[in-house]
Amino acid sequence: MKALVYRGPGKKAWEDRPRPKLLDPNDAVVRVTQTTICGTDLHILKGDVPTVTNGRILGHEGVGVVDEAGAGVSSFKKGDRVLISCITSCGKCDACKRGMYSHCASGGWVLGNMIDGTQAEHVRIPHADGSLYHAPSGVEDEALVMLSDILPTGFECGVLNGAVKPGDTVAIVGAGPVGLAALLTAQFFSPAEIIMVDLDDNRLEVARSFGATQAVNSRDGKAAQRVMALTGGKGVDVAIEAVGIPDTFDLCQDTVAAGGHIANVGVHGRSVSLKLEKLWAHNVTITTRLVDTVTTPMLLKNVVAGRLAPRKLVTHRFALDELVEAYDTFANAAKEKALKVVVRARD
Amino acid sequence: MKALVYRGPGKKAWEDRPRPKLLDPNDAVVRVTQTTICGTDLHILKGDVPTVTNGRILGHEGVGVVDEAGAGVSSFKKGDRVLISCITSCGKCDACKRGMYSHCASGGWVLGNMIDGTQAEHVRIPHADGSLYHAPSGVEDEALVMLSDILPTGFECGVLNGAVKPGDTVAIVGAGPVGLAALLTAQFFSPAEIIMVDLDDNRLEVARSFGATQAVNSRDGKAAQRVMALTGGKGVDVAIEAVGIPDTFDLCQDTVAAGGHIANVGVHGRSVSLKLEKLWAHNVTITTRLVDTVTTPMLLKNVVAGRLAPRKLVTHRFALDELVEAYDTFANAAKEKALKVVVRARD
Amino acid sequence: MKALVYRGPGKKAWEDRPRPKLLDPNDAVVRVTQTTICGTDLHILKGDVPTVTNGRILGHEGVGVVDEAGAGVSSFKKGDRVLISCITSCGKCDACKRGMYSHCASGGWVLGNMIDGTQAEHVRIPHADGSLYHAPSGVEDEALVMLSDILPTGFECGVLNGAVKPGDTVAIVGAGPVGLAALLTAQFFSPAEIIMVDLDDNRLEVARSFGATQAVNSRDGKAAQRVMALTGGKGVDVAIEAVGIPDTFDLCQDTVAAGGHIANVGVHGRSVSLKLEKLWAHNVTITTRLVDTVTTPMLLKNVVAGRLAPRKLVTHRFALDELVEAYDTFANAAKEKALKVVVRARD
Amino acid sequence: MKALVYRGPGKKAWEDRPRPKLLDPNDAVVRVTQTTICGTDLHILKGDVPTVTNGRILGHEGVGVVDEAGAGVSSFKKGDRVLISCITSCGKCDACKRGMYSHCASGGWVLGNMIDGTQAEHVRIPHADGSLYHAPSGVEDEALVMLSDILPTGFECGVLNGAVKPGDTVAIVGAGPVGLAALLTAQFFSPAEIIMVDLDDNRLEVARSFGATQAVNSRDGKAAQRVMALTGGKGVDVAIEAVGIPDTFDLCQDTVAAGGHIANVGVHGRSVSLKLEKLWAHNVTITTRLVDTVTTPMLLKNVVAGRLAPRKLVTHRFALDELVEAYDTFANAAKEKALKVVVRARD
Repeated sequence: MKALVYRGPGKKAWEDRPRPKLLDPNDAVVRVTQTTICGTDLHILKGDVPTVTNGRILGHEGVGVVDEAGAGVSSFKKGDRVLISCITSCGKCDACKRGMYSHCASGGWVLGNMIDGTQAEHVRIPHADGSLYHAPSGVEDEALVMLSDILPTGFECGVLNGAVKPGDTVAIVGAGPVGLAALLTAQFFSPAEIIMVDLDDNRLEVARSFGATQAVNSRDGKAAQRVMALTGGKGVDVAIEAVGIPDTFDLCQDTVAAGGHIANVGVHGRSVSLKLEKLWAHNVTITTRLVDTVTTPMLLKNVVAGRLAPRKLVTHRFALDELVEAYDTFANAAKEKALKVVVRARD
Repeated sequence: MKALVYRGPGKKAWEDRPRPKLLDPNDAVVRVTQTTICGTDLHILKGDVPTVTNGRILGHEGVGVVDEAGAGVSSFKKGDRVLISCITSCGKCDACKRGMYSHCASGGWVLGNMIDGTQAEHVRIPHADGSLYHAPSGVEDEALVMLSDILPTGFECGVLNGAVKPGDTVAIVGAGPVGLAALLTAQFFSPAEIIMVDLDDNRLEVARSFGATQAVNSRDGKAAQRVMALTGGKGVDVAIEAVGIPDTFDLCQDTVAAGGHIANVGVHGRSVSLKLEKLWAHNVTITTRLVDTVTTPMLLKNVVAGRLAPRKLVTHRFALDELVEAYDTFANAAKEKALKVVVRARD
Repeated sequence: MKALVYRGPGKKAWEDRPRPKLLDPNDAVVRVTQTTICGTDLHILKGDVPTVTNGRILGHEGVGVVDEAGAGVSSFKKGDRVLISCITSCGKCDACKRGMYSHCASGGWVLGNMIDGTQAEHVRIPHADGSLYHAPSGVEDEALVMLSDILPTGFECGVLNGAVKPGDTVAIVGAGPVGLAALLTAQFFSPAEIIMVDLDDNRLEVARSFGATQAVNSRDGKAAQRVMALTGGKGVDVAIEAVGIPDTFDLCQDTVAAGGHIANVGVHGRSVSLKLEKLWAHNVTITTRLVDTVTTPMLLKNVVAGRLAPRKLVTHRFALDELVEAYDTFANAAKEKALKVVVRARD
Repeated sequence: MKALVYRGPGKKAWEDRPRPKLLDPNDAVVRVTQTTICGTDLHILKGDVPTVTNGRILGHEGVGVVDEAGAGVSSFKKGDRVLISCITSCGKCDACKRGMYSHCASGGWVLGNMIDGTQAEHVRIPHADGSLYHAPSGVEDEALVMLSDILPTGFECGVLNGAVKPGDTVAIVGAGPVGLAALLTAQFFSPAEIIMVDLDDNRLEVARSFGATQAVNSRDGKAAQRVMALTGGKGVDVAIEAVGIPDTFDLCQDTVAAGGHIANVGVHGRSVSLKLEKLWAHNVTITTRLVDTVTTPMLLKNVVAGRLAPRKLVTHRFALDELVEAYDTFANAAKEKALKVVVRARD
């Protein structure tokens, strides 16, 4: 089969690879019908993720059809159309029993990281019963594939950890795909105001069309003042960090109200300065989380009910054998006005 | 009357001052029968707290008897024996309605800070209905005065914010009075292990006698390794920071388990480095809080029921006119083996 | 002034009464600009509420302008436009500190019950700081008056107690004003399905236009089967009882899923049979509540933000001196297709 | 092997039966070293549980050693000493993912009910990874076997569902083994008062020695008045029903404070009357639950930490081949002063 293979920092190739086989009775092999590229894949390509080694097939998002299911798999069989979760979960270890699938003792984020991933014609999924979801009929693949990672990430790490409530004022810092996923799912809890902050006016415009009530361009370094002004000097109930650098974390610290929440979603490469000299008495809660995908069934219900429209996030479409071009587009997201770039197997 | 007055950085004096008067119908004036000194008072004396100005009477802890109550005060009358909360609460503003009394729009921590405090023969208490509690009969003043600040602080900022649960492994960094208050009240939730960390072997010994299951002296810089070893490499479910410096916050970051809590109690004078490059995927919750004293009624019930013995924290006793000597003892806590130093009005 | 006075079972009169005076420093007197009639007022008129005695001015809902404020009132002054809460709260007692204003030791539901109410030209409001809310500019009186009682009732007793979550299936039994208030506010949490049950096709049609995804007429006694069929035999996550009779409570018991919630909103006159022989192993939660109105500030924010449109509930409008006619219309709600009937002071 | 077999209402026999075999890759076969008898077993013998049919081996509690583990079992192997949970859990279905193992789509309470149980020399355990727990070394079998059912039942259905908090006043109605398990585990949360109610003075004496602060004998029908008097007329924060008949549920209704919880633990054979005419405005929460055993790992930690001493509940010991005599003793619990009767395999 063909697959996109990591070949060391800066290098990737569309290569021939053997079709994966079942290695454990709880495995399934899935034929991939749709995949997509994550910001994390770009980090991997830069060589930033040491667990990814030369020869690894990339990708941790996907929709497909079960091709083969091991004897221990009870919920899926050959021919089932499935959503692949970016998080693999055994369902048996202490972490899984607590709903913290991201820290599964024999799973977690392994696809396209510790084991071969979804940017290929086929992929082996360990702990298939805990890592796949039945695709509801009537929902298109390109909507579904948004639920592999970014929608649960925006929702769990941003919205749920931020404890967004009806009537709240929420700031979301970063209007990339995950920030926009937080924006879409924050609306499940009816905040009164959602202030979107980004450097890119195009993305801010998209954010407005997705339900943001205010948009702040942070290019001039005055975003904090502007957010404070928009909240009458009180600050926001919830600040969601969806970028992953010290500046954007600072913006959250500088604008969170007493009693508020900072929900970190961004993947950080270095430490930030936590202003405890001010915050120690500010009654704030700061959370971090690798997505657990425990809310995937709920998100699916909302997609079916028409209360969540994930396709909005898709801006570009490629065929599977155009994956290299798809990466080029996604790597130039601002110029290309790209959000999510989906990649489909040819029929 | 006599009072201990702040006279600028490094200076305090036992002075004559006019007896306070009611300024508002919701005020009460309380004759102080017992007060104590807080670590924060030492910070004030160094000049670290800019809201405290020359001439301010210090102190935010106390027990006493109501001498006069304004027309708007409904729950207290002259002669009532009362506990004075370190936090003044109007009960009407948004913050109070949310139970965040520490951020009361016209109260919060004002005693011995924005207005004259309790280290005096009398003190005016604004919003008396929300800031005083009836002293239960049969509980001694010196037990009660531990509930003005340190017990609710250890409990709310450390134990409740840390979400201590039965079976948990808890580390408490800092075995000063507040850390020990966290230790005493953490046991309300029956954690399986409580690891106490401090530099002072005497305090660690006290901690063991108060219920710590492990004691780690951090003098050699290897506390993190030791805590990790004690938890079989998993880390602690809850790390309570009860010191207020970067090193102790680091110890919390370095030992918290995935899915765990860091509850900051310490008063910090400068920023700390938050290791998001590791923690972003660690599913942790970090909290800060100025004590709200919302749990004071519950703590009182536990004192009455014999499930909490606050007198354990009292090591030294002085008369009110010996307040200056009391400060000397408290300022040399390690040498004097001092925890809480109580100061009593002479009969 | 003029007021609607209860004159014993079945009797009411539009009478002259002295204008109320301040009785306590925390009182305010409000000139009523808008009031409305509650289902409970009809119960009172039947003689069902023994705490209401001959001579009582009825009414516990209203919007108005402060005419006089006692010395202890800090948040309101003469001329302020205010929303009157149906629940009076001192903010100081144990119940108020827990946010259970409905059980305030010196308040709770007293207006139009233990003391004279709002169906008058003026009304005295005890504990004014805790019982009034500033009316936001730009929101009309007739929208606001829906927040005196029915919107917080539907929301707190139905939606919050029912713990409605995104993706849930919710049944609301009873499409009267309070049931519809639950329907409007349940949507704050984005349930996937809301099944409305009532005997009246007109109200079901209204419910559909307010966001119900399914409507079930229960006239034929087969509502339970129909609800079960709509949920694929699993039952509903949340059943909200908004009528107050055994049959409707039974419908909730018969349709709640394992692990689900029954939130009672209805005012019951007699016991119901609780089917513990089935439910003991069904992991259900049943709640009751007299509205606390703790969510009024949040509901106001949502009205201002345009996320809640309470005026939808208003079907009929009368002048204050037409109150007797307004009662006639409301008492014949089905025939008149009446939901909320508002009554306005003439300018 | 030998086993205790149900032979229709009123009949049981100690019979020869074939040793169980693995039927599924996720099964294990366990050699039983310790079992015990549950009140439910007595109900079964009366013919009250229609799912139990003639020929069924009884028993859903046990400790043993794994004799054989299927290919899909990853956490257990031959020779492992294990605790058998009364609830079988697949870990994969919707209910299991919510932590509601009692309603597992292919499990739940099946042992000694839908399939053969633990009162035998060997037992087959389906979904072994989710239904067994490693026995900690140093904890005796007869302590462990209390964690198969009664301790998690008392804790989850009574204490957790009742939301017991530090400082609370708790009433536990019924001082049988499960009521006493609730009493032991309620103390994890440091309530100020625990009032135990029963008809049997011996059991009340045991309850006092287990930590009850008050004991009320309900024989004279005045228990409600007595509980109200003990709480100064306010009622209890939490009422735990651990009997399963209308009278004891009534006692809970009659004594629960406004804002309080009624946690049903008892197995009810018929409906009770729910006094909604009073409770509708009383802000109460009523819960039911079949134990999920999600807290078993936490309870095990507390046993190891010495904070829970389950052996206290064991009053009588028999050999496995004396099971019929053990039933006789347990069936005459009051006369025999029996709590839990354990049954051990001979070495």
